[in-house]
Amino acid sequence: MSSVEPLELIHPVILSGGSGTRLWPASRESYPKQFIPLAAPDRSSFQATALRLTDAGTFARPAVISAADARFLVAEQLAQVGVAADILLEPCRRDSAPAVAVAALHAAARDPRALVLILAADHVVGEPEAFVAAARAARAGARAGAIMTLGLAPTTPATAYGYIEPGPPLPGEAGAGGARAVARFVEKPDAARAAALIGEGALWNGGYFLFRADVMLEELRAHAPAVLAAAEAALRGATRDLDFVRLDPSAFAASPQISIDYAVMERTGRAGVLPVSFSWSDIGTWGALWEVSAQDEAGNAVRGRVALRETRNSLVHGTDEVLTAVVGLDDVVVVATPDAVLVTTRRAGGGGVKALVEDLRARGEPEADAHRLMYRPWGSYQRIDLGARFQVKRITVKPGGRLSLQKHHHRAEHWVVVRGTAEVTVDGVVRLVHENEAAYLPIGCIHRLVNPGKIPLELIEVQVGSYTGEDDIIRIEDVYGRENG
Amino acid sequence: MSSVEPLELIHPVILSGGSGTRLWPASRESYPKQFIPLAAPDRSSFQATALRLTDAGTFARPAVISAADARFLVAEQLAQVGVAADILLEPCRRDSAPAVAVAALHAAARDPRALVLILAADHVVGEPEAFVAAARAARAGARAGAIMTLGLAPTTPATAYGYIEPGPPLPGEAGAGGARAVARFVEKPDAARAAALIGEGALWNGGYFLFRADVMLEELRAHAPAVLAAAEAALRGATRDLDFVRLDPSAFAASPQISIDYAVMERTGRAGVLPVSFSWSDIGTWGALWEVSAQDEAGNAVRGRVALRETRNSLVHGTDEVLTAVVGLDDVVVVATPDAVLVTTRRAGGGGVKALVEDLRARGEPEADAHRLMYRPWGSYQRIDLGARFQVKRITVKPGGRLSLQKHHHRAEHWVVVRGTAEVTVDGVVRLVHENEAAYLPIGCIHRLVNPGKIPLELIEVQVGSYTGEDDIIRIEDVYGRENG
Repeated sequence: MSSVEPLELIHPVILSGGSGTRLWPASRESYPKQFIPLAAPDRSSFQATALRLTDAGTFARPAVISAADARFLVAEQLAQVGVAADILLEPCRRDSAPAVAVAALHAAARDPRALVLILAADHVVGEPEAFVAAARAARAGARAGAIMTLGLAPTTPATAYGYIEPGPPLPGEAGAGGARAVARFVEKPDAARAAALIGEGALWNGGYFLFRADVMLEELRAHAPAVLAAAEAALRGATRDLDFVRLDPSAFAASPQISIDYAVMERTGRAGVLPVSFSWSDIGTWGALWEVSAQDEAGNAVRGRVALRETRNSLVHGTDEVLTAVVGLDDVVVVATPDAVLVTTRRAGGGGVKALVEDLRARGEPEADAHRLMYRPWGSYQRIDLGARFQVKRITVKPGGRLSLQKHHHRAEHWVVVRGTAEVTVDGVVRLVHENEAAYLPIGCIHRLVNPGKIPLELIEVQVGSYTGEDDIIRIEDVYGRENG
Repeated sequence: MSSVEPLELIHPVILSGGSGTRLWPASRESYPKQFIPLAAPDRSSFQATALRLTDAGTFARPAVISAADARFLVAEQLAQVGVAADILLEPCRRDSAPAVAVAALHAAARDPRALVLILAADHVVGEPEAFVAAARAARAGARAGAIMTLGLAPTTPATAYGYIEPGPPLPGEAGAGGARAVARFVEKPDAARAAALIGEGALWNGGYFLFRADVMLEELRAHAPAVLAAAEAALRGATRDLDFVRLDPSAFAASPQISIDYAVMERTGRAGVLPVSFSWSDIGTWGALWEVSAQDEAGNAVRGRVALRETRNSLVHGTDEVLTAVVGLDDVVVVATPDAVLVTTRRAGGGGVKALVEDLRARGEPEADAHRLMYRPWGSYQRIDLGARFQVKRITVKPGGRLSLQKHHHRAEHWVVVRGTAEVTVDGVVRLVHENEAAYLPIGCIHRLVNPGKIPLELIEVQVGSYTGEDDIIRIEDVYGRENG
């Protein structure tokens, strides 16, 4: 192998399965943090991650492993940034080890020695070129059979990250870019231990893994055979659904729930680490987001309609609709969404917020997991008013979007088109409804809403009836293959 | 005068002109704090004040002096608690001296020696009977020619209140109830001075004034003749409008803007004080409201849908629609309303919040003064959605309520009745619209909405057009005599 031989491409696999409850109420199960433009105003961390993988000289077509519920979100966010990817759907959460196993098997099917890069969808990287250079530099170690990690130069004695103690340089070409063996992985330390670790030269574990597919499969077979067997069966039983690959639900569910760190990395003798120094965060908490956000002279990071007085070093994320004001407080986090407000301290870890979300779930509060703005393959809707016998929604349908053919047992609906043109089917009769026109859908009628136009369709839906819950939608036919949701 | 002679009635006058911006965003110019159920969940401080005056053996029919803009609010809140009152409307704000002058003149017109009790609409009194007993006890001093105040026994060295240093007992019968002359009024002190004042026996100035009308008029003539002249002219030029007495606008505006404390109390030699000890607050700040609110074991006072973790001694007022959560903070105030959220510290004075509202006004933010829920004589409305070319409102019309006959230049409207029955007039054609029926109002049509029924009418209004502002309402006829608003 000589240095003039073109280097083989890396097969990136984005793990996008997290729910990010530490960033509630912006991040929720129904729309987790990796899909929200948190660190940048116009782009989610998932999108930024996908865009970091577009260097055609370095990366092959990426794959995404996502929760099945988030499939339309993944597809739409990729389309928005013009990135094509394979999308594999996890039927349930089993932590990262089964996902890494699926990723290795997926790549090995084409080339057993394919280089696979595992990366998380929710990390923020300050210098994308430095990230690409690091991935390229780690290839030599991976090609030589190491499972390479990226070890980030710590900037603070963070207690939110795991650390890696580097060992001796990898031998021969594998160590060319400065790659070292891993002496030890250290779990999230306390502050004193973190400072000591940094003094000893430890690095932050960035959660990146670059390996040859065959190497990872060998290590899984040795250290986590049940995980590997479940992943193999889940791929064998996989089905295609539109553009998605659905892993076999019962096979995948049979995997132990375990992270790749515990399943393989802490047990293998083949772990390597490339020391790197680009700016990086996993935005695991609101405080971490504040750190990577643009701040004004008073140290405040704000979003939306916000008014501050005598307030410093705070993160205040409001909306365009509601005015959010803070007076006379430092180091606070205020996040106002249309249906939930969180006030907490910037200095706390995310444990309190996570525990709060668990409290809310236990109390049956819908805001624990569901957003008011709900994304659907055809567009989105949000409730804007709710009364004893009525509900009002604003519905947005993308050009070409088609809602399911459906009926309701307990409500009639009035649709007023406020933008664009709707094609409305009621009991087999199709008509166009234009801006400032209305349609009436009596209880029990079979109806469908389509946007036949070139611009988004917006309409106000007034539901009137004894029950207006989402589960009174009887689907007769759906182009998106949905039975529910 | 013997003790068996029935004591004459006190003529109470409630001053209800404040705007309460220190309690923003709950309290705003368009719906100030005295009308909001803040200290009690079901009753505003204005209503509680009116109900404290219903002892027919002590009080005559009360009068209310209110800002003209709040007239329907005053009338409706009085009707809700079944209290009948004269309502005098101030065309503009001139502080308390002109209002007291009007109150004295209003009472003197029937009886020059009438006993007048001035009281604020925004105070909270723990023991209403003790208040009534105090008013009765202060009568002797007032009848003898003193301008009596109530001096509350201080419970803390508060810096938010003025203090009264009592002098020698009033002579003869005037001093029977323990009434003293006033040695000195002291403006809001700092904490050290407050403690010293309390050590010297000083009392909180509760802002109550009980006097003979002729005495107050003599003192105004001596110390504030311009105020008295303006009040006389404003009453001379007053007009009746429905059940309201509108003071003459230009005459009233000619008064100096000055408080009765500065104009008379600090100058007169006739001030008296009755020491009293009922629990009392002027709920001048969110922190003061926390103090008088029911608190849980952690010291939290909450309202609405609220979730707390590791939070103590805080006031959290949310709504039923939005979930408001606080994690890991003590001594904070969080007030979430449908269109504005405030986060501040409980220990601060209200100066920061007041200054914030001034900032917001300067920035032209509508939330500075207007509430999303707007009260009208016929009912109320609130915006529930707003887009580039549309707006959605929920409109509630009281039984018998009639909106003005009106038209719009820039918008069409769709009305969907979700509760009750509407009588809709469109270009002279009247029809009834029932629940789950809709009406369409094309641009430019002359229309009116009436609730002819026995239950409230609720409808969803979808406005579509190039401009949906409130000022595109051209009133052709209005039963409430409104030209605007």
